[in-house]
Amino acid sequence: MTEQTRLPREILVVGSVGLDNVETPFGKVERALGGSATYFATAASFFAPVNLVGIVGTDFPQEHIDFLQQRGVNLDGLEIVEGETFFWAGRYDYDLNVAHTLETRLNVFADFNPQLPPHYRTPSLLFLANIAPELQLSVLDQVERPDLVALDTMNFWIDSQKEALIRVIQKVDVVIINEAEARDLAETPSLLKAARTILSWGPRALVVKRGEYGAALFTSGSSRVDSFFFVPAYPLEDVRDPTGAGDTFAGGFIGALAHEPVLDTNALRRAMVQGSVVASFTVEDFSINRLKEIRIEDIWARTKEFRAFTYFEPLEVARS
Amino acid sequence: MTEQTRLPREILVVGSVGLDNVETPFGKVERALGGSATYFATAASFFAPVNLVGIVGTDFPQEHIDFLQQRGVNLDGLEIVEGETFFWAGRYDYDLNVAHTLETRLNVFADFNPQLPPHYRTPSLLFLANIAPELQLSVLDQVERPDLVALDTMNFWIDSQKEALIRVIQKVDVVIINEAEARDLAETPSLLKAARTILSWGPRALVVKRGEYGAALFTSGSSRVDSFFFVPAYPLEDVRDPTGAGDTFAGGFIGALAHEPVLDTNALRRAMVQGSVVASFTVEDFSINRLKEIRIEDIWARTKEFRAFTYFEPLEVARS
Repeated sequence: MTEQTRLPREILVVGSVGLDNVETPFGKVERALGGSATYFATAASFFAPVNLVGIVGTDFPQEHIDFLQQRGVNLDGLEIVEGETFFWAGRYDYDLNVAHTLETRLNVFADFNPQLPPHYRTPSLLFLANIAPELQLSVLDQVERPDLVALDTMNFWIDSQKEALIRVIQKVDVVIINEAEARDLAETPSLLKAARTILSWGPRALVVKRGEYGAALFTSGSSRVDSFFFVPAYPLEDVRDPTGAGDTFAGGFIGALAHEPVLDTNALRRAMVQGSVVASFTVEDFSINRLKEIRIEDIWARTKEFRAFTYFEPLEVARS
Repeated sequence: MTEQTRLPREILVVGSVGLDNVETPFGKVERALGGSATYFATAASFFAPVNLVGIVGTDFPQEHIDFLQQRGVNLDGLEIVEGETFFWAGRYDYDLNVAHTLETRLNVFADFNPQLPPHYRTPSLLFLANIAPELQLSVLDQVERPDLVALDTMNFWIDSQKEALIRVIQKVDVVIINEAEARDLAETPSLLKAARTILSWGPRALVVKRGEYGAALFTSGSSRVDSFFFVPAYPLEDVRDPTGAGDTFAGGFIGALAHEPVLDTNALRRAMVQGSVVASFTVEDFSINRLKEIRIEDIWARTKEFRAFTYFEPLEVARS
């Protein structure tokens, strides 16, 4: 771009908006606000204006709509149709890394066919949350080339629609998935090999979410030094509910990029830290409850701590 | 200390010396050099002189003794007694994080009762590898207060001799264990809570080994910023055999401290990196085969790369 980039960049997210029943050893919620686009938008809204495309039923509580709008999330792209909202019920045991799905009811989400309002079609940053690859492709067809497109996906699409998924991946800049998905997608137990395979399809970056172990960034540099970056998870005494950690990581990641004049590898590294920070708040309570409580100052405070978590001063050892 | 510390510091290790059958999806070895003290000493010998206390049977191959001596490992403390050497057989599947023990024969190791030769009794750095807590205590009784004592242990001792184990932990400076052991030892699923519990018993540092996710250092600082440090595992395309990764991590860690004039938190952070580097070589081949091939220059080369893996330049965002 020759023109000056206007900051913060405008963000568009397309994905699910739902209601969740979640139970963990530390409590439970019923029909709480959930869905990939919801989590993402709530997180990203700390940083920049967000346009959301999704679908809900007429049972979707007005309070959630009010909340998102208060956060500066534009809902012109949220379709409200006769029927019930997407519903997910899940349970976590003490190993909070593993979600046990108890029930999934797609409801109106089964007929989701994202249509972008005209004023949504020139986003600077586009996040294709976890939806069918064909729908992700249809969104790409409706936008003018954004500065950066990222996508998430899940094992269901990797197993059932891999070819379409690879076609989307070829068209995006950043793939943001979890570790098991990366290995499945590339069909190798080696994460580094998986990263090379996925990057060979076209994206310039792969973000691998590793839950309590943080996240790894692989870019298409020529050496490990150029191409590998690692951020830990913020050390927390109590994790109550990991639901939404991945989507709010993505929200913090894309939100951070909204403030970057240049979307280079350094910007991606800073975005990794911001993703990890925002996800660390999400898991401290159920649904988006913790994100409702905090302010941007809380996010900056944790962000400042991150440097120290990995910082060391090299010692020059004189050796014969 | 008021006197000048002489560098590199002398290292003493007490632990097992054994022969291993190991099988992974990438190959297998039979009666290969193994044992916690052996792995540790091989790794630490890149950095400083190492004295080893252990026990083997008369079947222990002379070539292994020759190898260790060539590496500058002093074996005056290695007892050779009538009988067979400690033997372990294990298998790893594609999930290389999980070792499946097929057979353990303690053999002469069952009667191990470490006796330190007189010239071993003033080590600067002492590593108590994974042996019975009572034996670790007996070693502590035989040495003059070293500058730093670290210990490893395993679930077997946590489950069967926890009281004795805690008595040793109260007397050491650094506990180096894996993640599951830390949670078991402190009886909590929260790693941060586990760290606080273990540090409350007396040690100034806890090192938690996390396999392919690297390692975390907790020190008794007042805030997360002071007290938490994280180092990733070196990204490898192929891991052939994870056996010995933990002990060689400890060897690199203590080896790095041998060159530190002051054993402060910065020194511990650098040692974490060195541990991760050395372990990354270990897992590239079976037994100590890869460590036999490399030179100190190879270690320095990877060490230099580590800074970039976690380095990011903070962006000052002007916010209203």
